[in-house]
Amino acid sequence: MSEADGDQVIRFHFDYISPYAYLAWTQIHALAERHRAQVEPVPVLFAALLDRHGQKGPAEIPSKRAYLIKDVSRTARRLGVVIAPPPAHPFNPLLGLRLSSLPMPAATRRELVNALYQATWGGGEGITDRAKVAAIAARVGLGADAVALAEQPEAKERVRRQTDDAIAAGTFGVPTMIVGGELFWGVDSLPSLDRFLAGERDVDPELVARWASLPASAKRPGADR
Amino acid sequence: MSEADGDQVIRFHFDYISPYAYLAWTQIHALAERHRAQVEPVPVLFAALLDRHGQKGPAEIPSKRAYLIKDVSRTARRLGVVIAPPPAHPFNPLLGLRLSSLPMPAATRRELVNALYQATWGGGEGITDRAKVAAIAARVGLGADAVALAEQPEAKERVRRQTDDAIAAGTFGVPTMIVGGELFWGVDSLPSLDRFLAGERDVDPELVARWASLPASAKRPGADR
Repeated sequence: MSEADGDQVIRFHFDYISPYAYLAWTQIHALAERHRAQVEPVPVLFAALLDRHGQKGPAEIPSKRAYLIKDVSRTARRLGVVIAPPPAHPFNPLLGLRLSSLPMPAATRRELVNALYQATWGGGEGITDRAKVAAIAARVGLGADAVALAEQPEAKERVRRQTDDAIAAGTFGVPTMIVGGELFWGVDSLPSLDRFLAGERDVDPELVARWASLPASAKRPGADR
Repeated sequence: MSEADGDQVIRFHFDYISPYAYLAWTQIHALAERHRAQVEPVPVLFAALLDRHGQKGPAEIPSKRAYLIKDVSRTARRLGVVIAPPPAHPFNPLLGLRLSSLPMPAATRRELVNALYQATWGGGEGITDRAKVAAIAARVGLGADAVALAEQPEAKERVRRQTDDAIAAGTFGVPTMIVGGELFWGVDSLPSLDRFLAGERDVDPELVARWASLPASAKRPGADR
């Protein structure tokens, strides 16, 4: 607790496809509680962030995928989190994202995200099968029509809008936590977020301003290499 | 010190263009000394790694660049390293990389890399001006022909080969530290490297094997989003 603590909101941008977003999800509530902050889960489509920035996903570069599997394993062990991959990966996360975006009480949404993440990275059966997703929705107390609602144009538009808003706010990957306009990207950034919520301001504004305005003296020297 | 300690070699793959590689360079020698390991600097062209994997660089995505500047500032402060951007960024690092790859004693190479990094991220005048690079070479005791040698086809070919070898070994970014075939990517991976050198094996091989062999059930759902 510090003077900076209060009722701040951490907008937690995630996609079920990302194991790093899962690992961050397992940590974010305890972190938020230390600072009496609220967590607002914001489902976004990671693939759309990549498309927008013309990037490949980590799973689309074989050597990066191989490395990240090990890194996720190490990070999970360090955090004391049991992680197990879903039946297939990559998979289409849209039904899960749309379901998670429906209007519902905050406590229900947290339980739903927990349950969908357990099905994805907690040794479950994945979140691509409609009947299994419906069973999860029922278990956390959503109405029998929840999955059907998630398939309506309104739900699709909601995830698109959340994704576009995230991009407009500077998001380029998941997880991204945004508090009062400040971005924190990746599970590795949680300690920085923790310090930020405690009131520490550890970015040097002079360095940032100077660097941000630097000229570029070269494009990629690929041709000459 | 542990039973695993010994005369292991840390191949430190870097490009002067990367501030994260600079931050890792400021830490790697103390880390290596804790485990009686050797550091072997391996200059590689980051732009070529990106080209090979069809990726954009962090500085080529405006929102990512803005974030990374802040993240570098935070990381530098946490590590107690003073960092200042070069006169221009991105810049063409090839002369510095080629010079750093010339045959020379290990102690000289370490001093040279130190000096070129100081000129880049330590508030210096950058490493694109030939005369200034020549002055740095002279200061660390290289011969008067060092820069001319760095411009020869043999030096160009050496950096190309080092880059290609790094890619073949699974490298996709800088800094990448390789020890006994195990990769560690990024300044954030230094604690993992530290534990690895201490003999800890914190990757779950069963998880890695299962995950690596997973089927993909979807490509990017961009079209339907």
